[in-house]
Amino acid sequence: MTYCLGMFLDDGLVMASDSRTNAGVDQIAKVRKMANFVNPGERVITVLSAGNLGTTQSVVTLLRQSLRSDVEGHDLFAAKTMFDAARIVGGKLREVLQHDGEHVRLHGDPNASFLVGGQITGESHRLFQIYSAGNFVEASARAQLLQIGETKYGKPILDRAVVDETTLDAAAKLALISFDATIRSNLSVEGPIDLIRYKADSFVADNVCKYRRDDPYWVDLRTRYSEGLMQVINSIPNPPDAGMM
Amino acid sequence: MTYCLGMFLDDGLVMASDSRTNAGVDQIAKVRKMANFVNPGERVITVLSAGNLGTTQSVVTLLRQSLRSDVEGHDLFAAKTMFDAARIVGGKLREVLQHDGEHVRLHGDPNASFLVGGQITGESHRLFQIYSAGNFVEASARAQLLQIGETKYGKPILDRAVVDETTLDAAAKLALISFDATIRSNLSVEGPIDLIRYKADSFVADNVCKYRRDDPYWVDLRTRYSEGLMQVINSIPNPPDAGMM
Repeated sequence: MTYCLGMFLDDGLVMASDSRTNAGVDQIAKVRKMANFVNPGERVITVLSAGNLGTTQSVVTLLRQSLRSDVEGHDLFAAKTMFDAARIVGGKLREVLQHDGEHVRLHGDPNASFLVGGQITGESHRLFQIYSAGNFVEASARAQLLQIGETKYGKPILDRAVVDETTLDAAAKLALISFDATIRSNLSVEGPIDLIRYKADSFVADNVCKYRRDDPYWVDLRTRYSEGLMQVINSIPNPPDAGMM
Repeated sequence: MTYCLGMFLDDGLVMASDSRTNAGVDQIAKVRKMANFVNPGERVITVLSAGNLGTTQSVVTLLRQSLRSDVEGHDLFAAKTMFDAARIVGGKLREVLQHDGEHVRLHGDPNASFLVGGQITGESHRLFQIYSAGNFVEASARAQLLQIGETKYGKPILDRAVVDETTLDAAAKLALISFDATIRSNLSVEGPIDLIRYKADSFVADNVCKYRRDDPYWVDLRTRYSEGLMQVINSIPNPPDAGMM
């Protein structure tokens, strides 16, 4: 399993991914699921991957190999818009599934999905979720959160707290709480967490952090959050007994 | 969908269920998914249902019809232990699936699952989860939480806060927060919530509450929880930028 999260905010984008990959519970490893395609000052494109690792690695590798080929529909650096970039990722996914899908299906699920976010000069920052069919949807002010993989455990905190105006720093904090909730509940999601804060119109990817479970900031955040939460819960009056309702 | 929750605590049991039943998004209704089988002073058995409504209603009806028949393996009031009671529920489920399963499968999933908790004089309070196969597992001090239906959204808050020593009142509070998180994230879970606090060795079911979404206590709890949570989040320092790590 995997957990990847993208947040579409007025100030920019926050995107984060875990590092667990597994085939069964006795074959586990760590991989980086975030790939950044950056032409500083001109475009930043971040791709997060979930699903079959063979498929996702092939897609990202093909994306890298096509960079600067200047072939339309293949080269992320030649894409004129983020919509075109999302189409390229979806196209590469179809290409890989066409090549491997039938063979992999005998052994397991070849499918994969992606979050693609970033900004290309000439338009605003944008965020997409690519389905296994290669089609996609876009985040908006009314639907700021996109998640792939093990999405449910980490969603309630985001649903409660994220609004358009949430700052990148606050969103990064919420993302780390969301990942912590998921890791606690699902063995197949694990650190380190890769997290990018992309500031709109900056066209640089200079704020990419990696959080191991023992990262001092993340440990401090988890402690403060758990303790604060317990204080809030304790401060709420108990439910009245049935006879008193 | 459905969300049912059982909490096995030193002080007793807290069990709760939502009321949404649906076949598609345009055919929805409310049903009570909690059934209490009580012989005051002697036994309290609470059954929570998830899954195919035809199946669960048949199971609960058959359980009611067999009450006081004194037929071993059928009459919940004749069960000597909660283990026997769980077996009876599993047996009725198999009976219904035997009777209807093949016919229902042409149209949809006939399966169902149950939480069965309570106490019979002569032993401690106990809590079980009955699978669709009619077999079951029991909660313990190391595994206090049993959930059926849409379980994931409401789990993180419980994982953080519930311990053996959690009081029944505190557990009821946490259950309501857990249901609120689930309702916010999944349309197919909805109030009213039925909630029982069973105090160990009381052998009465006198603390059963129903919470509509506009119940004053539940509204107050949701408001205090959301506001308190936001204060906690705001009080945590922001993550340092990449350059500062």
